[in-house]
This record gives sequence, structure tokens and C-alpha cells, in this order.
Amino acid sequence: MIPFRITIVGSGSAIPTLQRAATSQVVQYNGTTLLIDCAEGTQIQLKKLKISIMRIDHVFISHLHGDHYFGLIGLINTLHLIGRTNPLTIFGPSELIDILNLQLKASDTKLRYTIHFNALQTDGKQLIFEDKNLRYYSFPVIHRIPTWGFLFEEKETERQINPLFVAQQKLDIPTIKAIKSGSDYTDGNGNTVANNLITFPLDKRRSYAFCTDTSFDERLATYFNGVSVLYYEATFMHHMADTAAETFHSTSKQAAQMALIANAEKLLIGHFSSRYTDLQPLLDESRAVFPNTDLALDGNVFEIAV
Amino acid sequence: MIPFRITIVGSGSAIPTLQRAATSQVVQYNGTTLLIDCAEGTQIQLKKLKISIMRIDHVFISHLHGDHYFGLIGLINTLHLIGRTNPLTIFGPSELIDILNLQLKASDTKLRYTIHFNALQTDGKQLIFEDKNLRYYSFPVIHRIPTWGFLFEEKETERQINPLFVAQQKLDIPTIKAIKSGSDYTDGNGNTVANNLITFPLDKRRSYAFCTDTSFDERLATYFNGVSVLYYEATFMHHMADTAAETFHSTSKQAAQMALIANAEKLLIGHFSSRYTDLQPLLDESRAVFPNTDLALDGNVFEIAV
Repeated sequence: MIPFRITIVGSGSAIPTLQRAATSQVVQYNGTTLLIDCAEGTQIQLKKLKISIMRIDHVFISHLHGDHYFGLIGLINTLHLIGRTNPLTIFGPSELIDILNLQLKASDTKLRYTIHFNALQTDGKQLIFEDKNLRYYSFPVIHRIPTWGFLFEEKETERQINPLFVAQQKLDIPTIKAIKSGSDYTDGNGNTVANNLITFPLDKRRSYAFCTDTSFDERLATYFNGVSVLYYEATFMHHMADTAAETFHSTSKQAAQMALIANAEKLLIGHFSSRYTDLQPLLDESRAVFPNTDLALDGNVFEIAV
Repeated sequence: MIPFRITIVGSGSAIPTLQRAATSQVVQYNGTTLLIDCAEGTQIQLKKLKISIMRIDHVFISHLHGDHYFGLIGLINTLHLIGRTNPLTIFGPSELIDILNLQLKASDTKLRYTIHFNALQTDGKQLIFEDKNLRYYSFPVIHRIPTWGFLFEEKETERQINPLFVAQQKLDIPTIKAIKSGSDYTDGNGNTVANNLITFPLDKRRSYAFCTDTSFDERLATYFNGVSVLYYEATFMHHMADTAAETFHSTSKQAAQMALIANAEKLLIGHFSSRYTDLQPLLDESRAVFPNTDLALDGNVFEIAV
């Protein structure tokens, strides 16, 4: 099975603490490395976690509150200093590129590599990128300033044909391709064999959704229905639901409700307010509604199973 | 004696390491707290060092390379979130305020406190501020982009009159003031007593100079002649003097030469290249020229003695 791995780089919220850095995560899939959000200090956190910043292919910035992006310019600068030449793709709010360019200009830095910047669109769920393994989507969430969530989804894999059948029937290449893409097989005598009798079942398509910072609104669930793993913010416990609503955040109970509505297989909660030193009550509150919940803590690694 | 304390927050250079954060220092003098440079992660470093960011009165930014200021916007943002209302004075290159304002605008943040921004001038040594204890100076140094050093100098203290003399002569207030400011005393009969016979010697005026990043040029020494403690960069060892010159930096030997020329009492070297894990050779090289040298390492505290 191809590893599909989420590493929590920082799980805190606006005010960093000694226990929890602000938001950043790494997604690794078959040699592709994605960085989601990049709070202050992310490059040092990655060094501690032994994840090479040189290997980052694409960066996704959810919104322009500092606890989600203040570390990006430092990371970009270090990549320049250590000799990166491969392009870096960045997906983020349109103002981000102006902020980066102003800082590069002030330091008279001409990067040795190219940044391909892609401004996120507010218009519903968007396919923003695809490679041979994954489709990448953005979707707008509900926060004080424009903010996006992201969904990373495995593509359909080709069906594998039973090799005994290939050998027996001496299939030619065009026929093999047709069967792999789902066609039934018809032999020279006009006898048809159903596709599912001669191929193995397709692997389930795994997916990961990242959803922070946002108010709770169950309509968000349509963006990631059936997701394998949902990361959803739990800034507060539910007795502070009013504070959560006022500040465009969610509670640990609402995170669980979202996972339930979205038919997620697993829920990770994070973006914890700095007021919480003990997170067990938030986990308990979430598990009461959605048992398959885990805390996303700095340094935690989650493998998405088939 | 009033404490005059330097805390090294970060002593590294452009590429941060797990051992050394990039440049930042705190100067504390009689209840006034100054922050010099503010690399990425400074707010977390200060938390580890138990220095309250709320107590910072003035910030000094030497130049707009990221390893000297990328942490400032995060610190400003956290001060807003934790409820600062006292104004914050910032001295720095003129472009700095545009960078800060663009980021505050992107996050739709209206700070709860006022920033008093003062753009540094390239025109020689400038008195940029004074309070009841200290005079603050900036001076241009020699780097790839406009860069400044800073000098913090105790003001002249008033002379203290021998209290026996005050009682014996029944001095009135104007006379006491005159003696404190250095006048001799003449009694009703026209007899004069020299000031130094009836006052105690003035304390030496302590001072601290911060000088990084810069090429070596002995003319810089005129800006801080006779300084008590000089912090001067030692990015490289002297066998790399060519690299130092090309990159507008200095060596550990040049740091010592600068301290010698400036008649400094003590030298602190820092801004070490990430290539050095063992710093003893840099210290040895510097001490061979200027024995009273110390390494400035993250977390080190230096008290400037009278």
C-alpha cells in the first residue's frame, strides 16, 4: 500500500505556547510532500521532526491570520539560502504573493527558484491541481477573513486483471487496457465475461480533508463527504459555543458532529486554544459524539489506512 | 548599582539551527526593556527565557534580512491578542512599516495599541531617543542592504554632595543644585571650596553597542569608542576573510580588532554561521587579539558592571 501520511507540525491556535506551535501540517504521498499552513517557527519544527524542507513540492495556505502563515517567508528564504532550484507551488489567498514579494524586495533577494503562485477562488469547491496520484481541491469555509479548507483525494486506480485470465486468453494490449478501465471481455465466439469476474476489486480511494479556521455549518460537510480522515478545528469546548461562534471558530463537539454528518471514517481535532493545557476533556467531548476521534498533537503522525 | 543587562535571545545567522536561533537580544535597564532585532521564533524564545513580551518598550531592527526581523509581525500580533494597550516604539528601516501594515491589513487586524514607528537615517551617528536613564544612538554599518548598529549609553549622573558638608554649611536648594551640576562652592566670606572636595566621584557611564551585520571597517569604531560592552558579529573564522568580505560580514579576528580599536572593555561575538557546531575556535581566535571576549550564546545573560 502506498503510504498516505499526515504529520502534525503545530496544533495550537493564535497564541503559540511552549507545548503547541501554531498551525502547520505535512502530507506525504508516494514521494510527494505537501505543506499545509506554515506558522512562525515551522521550519524549525520540521527540522526537529527530520522532514526536509527541500522536499516540499506544494504549499497550501488556508488564510492570512498570522498563526497560519507567518513562517512561510522564513521557509522561502531558507530554501533560497540552502540552494533550492526546483520550483515551489503555493496555493493561498491572493494578497499573500504581495506580502511575500514586498519582503523579498526589502531584502534585495532574487530567489534561485521559481514560485508558482495560485490564488484561491471563493466560488465553491474547486479542483486546484492534480498529479498522477491525487486530486487537490479547495473549498471556502466561514471565518472572519476569507479562508479555505483543502481536500486531497486519491485518483481512481486501474483495475488489476487476474493474471491467469491474461495468460489463458492471450489478451492483446488494447484489450487489456479496455478491461483495466472497466470493460467486460468478449471473446472471438461472442461470449462475454463480466469485468468483475476477471479483475480484482478496486482499492478504496483514500482522502484527507483539512478544515480550519471555521464556524460550524453543516453544509461544509458536502465538500468532504465520505472522507477517510477529517482534520477539523476544536478551538474551544462546547460550553464556549457562543465564544466559538463570535470568533468564527468551532468546538470539540461540533468537530465530531461535522465528522458524523460528513460520514468521515476518522476525525483529528486540533487548533486548540492556548487556555487548554489538558486536552483530554476536548477528546472526551468529541468521542462522545464520534468515537473514532484522535487529538492532533505536535509531532503526531497518522497513516491513512486502506 | 542599577542593573544593565543583555540577554542573548538568538546568536545564529541566516539559516537557523536547533542550537542557535537567529538574531535577537533584550537589553534591560532600570525597568526599561529594549528588544534588538527579532528573528523568526523570538516570541517563543522569550517565553522560554521567561522575559515578558508585554514589558518591551522599544524595538530596534538593524536591517531587513529575514534573520533579523521575520519574528516581529508575530510578536506584534501576539501583543494585540494578549491585550497590550501601551504604545510600542519601533526604530527600523523605512520599508519596515509598510511590510507590517500590509500584513495587518491582510488579517484585518486593528491593533489595540499604537505603534510609534521611527525610520532610521543613513546620515552618520544619530541620537534617536533618550529617556531619563539612557541615550539611544543609531549608526550606519556596511552591509548588502542598508543596515544600522545601535549604541545605548548611560546619561551623566548628578554628583552626590557629601551630606556632612550639606549639614555643616546649611546649604539652600539653589546652591545644592549648583554643586550637583559641578560648580565649586563659595561661602559668605568669599572662600571657595573645589567641587571635587565636597562631592563623590561620578560613576563611570556604562554603554552597550550592537554591531551586526557588517563588513569590517575600522572607521566604525568611532561610533562606539570607549564602549563598555561591544557585541560584534563573527560570522566566520579569519581563514574565510574573503568570504566574509564578499558577503559583507566579519570574522572572529576582525571582531577582536574592532574591540581593540574602539577601546571597548569587553567584547561579545555572535551571528555565527550555521557551519560551526563547535565555537571554541572562534573564541580562541578572538581572544588571541582581545582577551576579554565571550561567546554570545542563546540564553546567555551579561551584566554590564560599573
